[in-house]
Amino acid sequence: MPTFKITVAYDGTEFVGWQIQSNGPTIQGELQRALRVMVGRDVKVVGSGRTDSGVHAAGQVANFALENWSHDAEVFVDGLNAILPEQIVVLQCERALDSFHAIANCVAKRYRYQLQTSGPPDAFACRNRWRLKGAVDTGAMAAAASRIIGEQDYSSFEALGAPRQTSVRDITQCELLPQRDPTGRRDWCCIEVTANGFLYNMVRNIVGTIVEVGRGKHPPHWVDEVIEARARIAAGPTAPAHGLTLVEVRY
Amino acid sequence: MPTFKITVAYDGTEFVGWQIQSNGPTIQGELQRALRVMVGRDVKVVGSGRTDSGVHAAGQVANFALENWSHDAEVFVDGLNAILPEQIVVLQCERALDSFHAIANCVAKRYRYQLQTSGPPDAFACRNRWRLKGAVDTGAMAAAASRIIGEQDYSSFEALGAPRQTSVRDITQCELLPQRDPTGRRDWCCIEVTANGFLYNMVRNIVGTIVEVGRGKHPPHWVDEVIEARARIAAGPTAPAHGLTLVEVRY
Repeated sequence: MPTFKITVAYDGTEFVGWQIQSNGPTIQGELQRALRVMVGRDVKVVGSGRTDSGVHAAGQVANFALENWSHDAEVFVDGLNAILPEQIVVLQCERALDSFHAIANCVAKRYRYQLQTSGPPDAFACRNRWRLKGAVDTGAMAAAASRIIGEQDYSSFEALGAPRQTSVRDITQCELLPQRDPTGRRDWCCIEVTANGFLYNMVRNIVGTIVEVGRGKHPPHWVDEVIEARARIAAGPTAPAHGLTLVEVRY
Repeated sequence: MPTFKITVAYDGTEFVGWQIQSNGPTIQGELQRALRVMVGRDVKVVGSGRTDSGVHAAGQVANFALENWSHDAEVFVDGLNAILPEQIVVLQCERALDSFHAIANCVAKRYRYQLQTSGPPDAFACRNRWRLKGAVDTGAMAAAASRIIGEQDYSSFEALGAPRQTSVRDITQCELLPQRDPTGRRDWCCIEVTANGFLYNMVRNIVGTIVEVGRGKHPPHWVDEVIEARARIAAGPTAPAHGLTLVEVRY
């Protein structure tokens, strides 16, 4: 059946995550509702992975199949955007191989976690940036981040009660990127993590661990011990969902 | 009575404007509520001017007076921010002359209007940027903007039914500033307007007029006719509130 690949951005603040739930609006649910309005029948949308309640995306990818669609794939961009709530935006839609599957064909994903490290709260960024209270050493955080790169067992960063078949992942980027605040009132940075796959809550647990280093509770090389322990309890707490954005899904 | 000057930023999306109203939450109302929690009594907060429902601020200024306050003025920053909703942030608080008055002493204000001129909607900026549909000529818009500068009667940009004693204002800056979109998917720009005072809806009416030029309905020099007409009907429509931010108040 003709298959379409869509790239979607969303501000996840007012949604209970990607996957359809009974307890509130979801990204998948809104996309399927908009597709039903547009094409007049039920269409299942398969995302590259679930994002949690409050997590955002700048480039989530999903697929859906549709028989007898005689228009270009691009019409879904303006068509769906006209129906969707403004916090969900279709950036791109293209015909894919009929065999294309957003989960199965994904080779890597990149996440970005936004952190404010000094200054007053930001009324405009409070929806997607975690504001840390108290001083942090971003140099130590950058050093800790770089030690997380590798292909190894990351059980220490896997949420309890959500095991996958294997906890081995290949993290190719884990980097602290300083950002510029145009007002000069605040310091903020991103932690970007790229891997061939992610365990449940993995980025938020990595960020929570790096922040412990930033607060001086542990030196950067403590991260090595955390990973070696292969136990969630060895790592730092889970950073809040609202700082996290799924930036890119690679195929 | 000891007087304090506070600088406040807010995302106005979920408020019915600065001034206390019966039909919804307001910035002034939230600030007075937070002050009451903090100091245990009613304190009136006077803003440099009202902002409308949905309009934002990056540097609104207000004053309040308080007897018997033995702490530093700065404690209001963290104190109020701990109580206020996250969309309202106190950036600064300082002791001012007892005679300081946020309206009477204001010598100029600067507003910024954010416009998206191409590309798909932006899930993260939809709260404070007006997205134009259809092509616009930003060069013509920049030319139109520069013709608005001057000290003259701006009745054409004054909302009907909201007259001030005089409609003469001194606009010292009216400028289109191209902005960079980090994703490369969109074009956007700001129109910044600085004046010694503003008529009701003045910036939104100026922007609506400049956009008419951008859409090719009139050439840039049409703006001269609009101003000369001294009649609201001569100008373009009112741009939506959500694109507007009060950036700075000068004393």
